[in-house]
Amino acid sequence: MASDRVLYGYWRSSAAFRVRIALNLKGLRYETRAIHLVREGGEQHAPDYVALNPQGLVPTLIDGGRVLTQSMAILEYLDETHPQPALLPADAAGRARVRALAQVVACDIHPIGNLRVLQWIGTQFNADDEQKSHWMRHWVATGFQALETMLASSKDTGRYCHGDTPGMADACLVPQVYNARRWKVPLGDYPTILRIDAACAVLDAFRDAMPEQQPDAPPRT
Amino acid sequence: MASDRVLYGYWRSSAAFRVRIALNLKGLRYETRAIHLVREGGEQHAPDYVALNPQGLVPTLIDGGRVLTQSMAILEYLDETHPQPALLPADAAGRARVRALAQVVACDIHPIGNLRVLQWIGTQFNADDEQKSHWMRHWVATGFQALETMLASSKDTGRYCHGDTPGMADACLVPQVYNARRWKVPLGDYPTILRIDAACAVLDAFRDAMPEQQPDAPPRT
Repeated sequence: MASDRVLYGYWRSSAAFRVRIALNLKGLRYETRAIHLVREGGEQHAPDYVALNPQGLVPTLIDGGRVLTQSMAILEYLDETHPQPALLPADAAGRARVRALAQVVACDIHPIGNLRVLQWIGTQFNADDEQKSHWMRHWVATGFQALETMLASSKDTGRYCHGDTPGMADACLVPQVYNARRWKVPLGDYPTILRIDAACAVLDAFRDAMPEQQPDAPPRT
Repeated sequence: MASDRVLYGYWRSSAAFRVRIALNLKGLRYETRAIHLVREGGEQHAPDYVALNPQGLVPTLIDGGRVLTQSMAILEYLDETHPQPALLPADAAGRARVRALAQVVACDIHPIGNLRVLQWIGTQFNADDEQKSHWMRHWVATGFQALETMLASSKDTGRYCHGDTPGMADACLVPQVYNARRWKVPLGDYPTILRIDAACAVLDAFRDAMPEQQPDAPPRT
């Protein structure tokens, strides 16, 4: 039942976006609770929410009474508790490859360009919007150059990051591409990334997870 | 055989340190190849190394011909290919908890304080050593406050991060504590973290993985 599963997220959070994709790929229904990361100093810092998620970050997934934090741990949990369709391939080498691709995004791109880091370079270095944009372009380009090489050079890459089934790496890649577009990062040098992003974009699981489809997204103008 | 397994690392890299701990916990022998991250512009950018690891980061593990990158993916791989002793508990909820604890470090503390980010705040914002230290203290404190709460408030925490067996979360925590000490981050507010770090410090698997024990560490003065 949907009410047994609640996702605390934010429409534009990459980490929440990943979890939405994974839930959708597995056909798992869930209820959305919006945590507005910017309004009134950030609802993620409210005591009730920090009691669930001591980091004061999104997402948090409540699943049958269990409180789960950290998006990548949540993806692994969903894959263990609802194995089909799988987010990871069956063989150890394939799993290592998919996790490594996912972690290029989840460990080496996204954390450095997260909202709180952008806010902090404003606080510590008085960075203005142009400098924040420069920061984003640098880190996305650094990560995407490596990711493009990893994807373009491997025979394991298929229609998606690994073969012809969307999985964990795609669930990380698509939100990062969305985020890069938001920051106007030039993406012309990453044809394989763009091809995979486009292949995912036509799938309902990804389309329904898009930020603009979430109940807390601002109305389109 | 040791020669079937080669770890490309750097004595002071937190991510390589994690993999050394995991290999030691499992009793897996390996040969060390040092990639000096600072000397001559960084050996990690040399074409031969980037051919193995397109990100130009450490560690890279060669295991029986397989090239593995991303430390957290490597830990999962080692746990799948050499299940005993396990780095993760057997139950899905416990596994989710351990991965979340590990990822507080691996996704939300370490990447923001990594060498390349510190170099970049020097490049983009002319940050001096004192400002770099301030940056480190801020991000370690932010992460450790949450981690301390997560560890201190859970009955699942034991002698180590999860029960009385060292595992994946400890393999991430100990290198981050080492790194925090190096940057003189005050640690008095994190008694549970310090207690677990001390419990790990007496184990051979952790002691042998310490930066100062590595062949590429500079001679002690």
